[in-house]
Amino acid sequence: MKNAEIIAVGSELLLGQIVNTNARFISQQLAELGINVYFHTVVGDNPDRLLSAIKTAETRANVIIFTGGLGPTKDDLTKETIARHLGKNLVTDQKALESIEQYFARTNRVMTENNRKQAWVLEGSQILPNDHGMAPGMVLESNGNTYMLLPGPPKEMEPMFRQYGYPALASKDAFQEKIVSRVLRFFGIGEAALETEIIDLIDAQSNPTIAPLAGDGEVTLRLTAKHVDEGIAQSMLDEVEKAISQRVGQFIYGYDNTSLLSELTKVLKERKLTITAAESLTGGLFQKEMTSIGGASSVFKGGIVCYSNEVKHNVLQVKQETLEKDGAVSEQCALELAENAAALLGADIGVSFTGVAGPNELEGKPVGTVYIGVALKGRPTVVEKLTLGGTREAIRNRAVKYGCYYALRNLKESQNA
Amino acid sequence: MKNAEIIAVGSELLLGQIVNTNARFISQQLAELGINVYFHTVVGDNPDRLLSAIKTAETRANVIIFTGGLGPTKDDLTKETIARHLGKNLVTDQKALESIEQYFARTNRVMTENNRKQAWVLEGSQILPNDHGMAPGMVLESNGNTYMLLPGPPKEMEPMFRQYGYPALASKDAFQEKIVSRVLRFFGIGEAALETEIIDLIDAQSNPTIAPLAGDGEVTLRLTAKHVDEGIAQSMLDEVEKAISQRVGQFIYGYDNTSLLSELTKVLKERKLTITAAESLTGGLFQKEMTSIGGASSVFKGGIVCYSNEVKHNVLQVKQETLEKDGAVSEQCALELAENAAALLGADIGVSFTGVAGPNELEGKPVGTVYIGVALKGRPTVVEKLTLGGTREAIRNRAVKYGCYYALRNLKESQNA
Repeated sequence: MKNAEIIAVGSELLLGQIVNTNARFISQQLAELGINVYFHTVVGDNPDRLLSAIKTAETRANVIIFTGGLGPTKDDLTKETIARHLGKNLVTDQKALESIEQYFARTNRVMTENNRKQAWVLEGSQILPNDHGMAPGMVLESNGNTYMLLPGPPKEMEPMFRQYGYPALASKDAFQEKIVSRVLRFFGIGEAALETEIIDLIDAQSNPTIAPLAGDGEVTLRLTAKHVDEGIAQSMLDEVEKAISQRVGQFIYGYDNTSLLSELTKVLKERKLTITAAESLTGGLFQKEMTSIGGASSVFKGGIVCYSNEVKHNVLQVKQETLEKDGAVSEQCALELAENAAALLGADIGVSFTGVAGPNELEGKPVGTVYIGVALKGRPTVVEKLTLGGTREAIRNRAVKYGCYYALRNLKESQNA
Repeated sequence: MKNAEIIAVGSELLLGQIVNTNARFISQQLAELGINVYFHTVVGDNPDRLLSAIKTAETRANVIIFTGGLGPTKDDLTKETIARHLGKNLVTDQKALESIEQYFARTNRVMTENNRKQAWVLEGSQILPNDHGMAPGMVLESNGNTYMLLPGPPKEMEPMFRQYGYPALASKDAFQEKIVSRVLRFFGIGEAALETEIIDLIDAQSNPTIAPLAGDGEVTLRLTAKHVDEGIAQSMLDEVEKAISQRVGQFIYGYDNTSLLSELTKVLKERKLTITAAESLTGGLFQKEMTSIGGASSVFKGGIVCYSNEVKHNVLQVKQETLEKDGAVSEQCALELAENAAALLGADIGVSFTGVAGPNELEGKPVGTVYIGVALKGRPTVVEKLTLGGTREAIRNRAVKYGCYYALRNLKESQNA
């Protein structure tokens, strides 16, 4: 059985300037791989203390995963310390060096000498390419232990681990039993309500397991099956999913890493429709999300951020009477915003967001009051009122998710009509 | 000198279900107290492994701070393990027991027997009352070491540490030296280039220390000084900062936890100016960021996301000739977008973003080509061309940071003019 220890290297962690989210992320991934994690360690940018941490880890783990300390500066000592400890050389990886040189050439910046250090790798190691930064990761087998070195910034480390680190560990033959998991994504039902509906299934199952997880205004169920035959593990998941769907299938909108927004984009592309938005409280968040994936331009041409009444009236032609009588946070305003945005931008569907993100109430309406309008060509415009809880950020995020959800629902209804 | 190790106890941390924010919080507090932290350890709810972690910590620290494992269930073993290790008895603390009984009476719940366990404390320890939960914390001196036990939930631990744990440590006369730190924030210079400029300063310094850290397209330098007199420590920082400023001061935009966007918002508020944006490749990200903090409405009224040529022309009046001759990704288009957005939205300053976020090139221009326009009332409009590297997300994030940077620079120049 493999036991892992995760060693995060960086004085900024010991000073409390950043939190060790890397240990959490890697722990989750190792759990999926069926590798036990018994210890996390954090150590500063100090070679002696790092060496002592490595020696301690070797007494209690056979998979040791390092994050941090692979960068260009003198502080970055992880590779050097491990090389010395294991008696390995550091050699320049040509592919990594080229990719660093290309990065500098592309950005018209002069590459200083210390950047070459980022291309040094432990001799005999398998390289984990860095698709989001410069320093490559690596995996080395030595004395019966597996050493994996990953960069510190989560934006580099997480995709590197998913893409290259996870398969590298999974391929080691000690992990015979395949672990297969599937995430069901729910919207429109809370975590506690969902659990109540299926508590007997959760309690009765140990393989597959059913694990609810809430976050970001959505609820997911992670189904995980173990079996030496991956096909059998998959059909075990199919069976559990069927039982869950019979009870709460109407709230499932997708699987694994999809999002409401990807689902919406997919439907719009299929039906060759375009969308626009008029955003007040969300301040551009819906449109930013819409354009966060390449290729959105076939369904999204642009939209308006109408953070003030002037812009609602002058740019989006919301009637002065509406703003004065009903207010900006109102059903009528949401309706005009959605319809007028669709007309102004020449889109098939207009979504509007107006409400109170906080911290203060607005027009006498409490924080969390949100109106979302959906104007779809050929159908009556609908406006939904929500009362959302949480921080300003949470309210804005959830409003955008609801906007996608209502738009999706309208598109489906229009197809069924 | 006192050196601390923080041991967080809880299998949920090793499974990646929660992140160890306690270690971060306590580290920050210990830095203020002038206590060095050289290691963080996370261990599960397992008495043997916890014992081994305690023994390891005793070889390298003389202040050992535990979080977690003080609760009522069978999993909670921190007190029991430490008591056995140090040869101490566990005794019921009457005040803690009364407060637990009162808690159950107040909430009309029946107190189960295992809750009494929460009132057990290490004999001879100083109690740290729990004002936000049931299990008290404690501090014990033994064999020249200080052992502090704190509950796991941050909502209980943080106020307990602030109110009782911090003063208990501060009162120990060994902690005389204060640690003071300051973060300088840079923009427009890479980590390696910055280090090259000041490498002799970094090498020459041990107090204060100078530590570079890169992330999110920005670079920071953390200056940390130790002295018994906090005022002297601060002036040591001033002196190092001055030396750094003489070389690379033009790239410093702020201190500690600020951001380019907060600095921009601050300047706009001071000068009572309003801003708007026309966003193509950034798709609303600038405006979303602008409105992410409450109270932006005095400087930001709204703006346009112009993801297509139709919207650039129809809504923002970019000339058809510009789009046909120069293209949407051009200096001329960025100029018209910035000026026309300011005019359409009635703002004092208009910022435009047009470029190629990827994954594919556009109009024959490579991924990462970005034009940013800044139209400030009473000054000639400026357009900057950038070549950014990285993913789509990184390009968009960095473009927004550059937009803030150029807007800030224009505002400063207009004041100096």
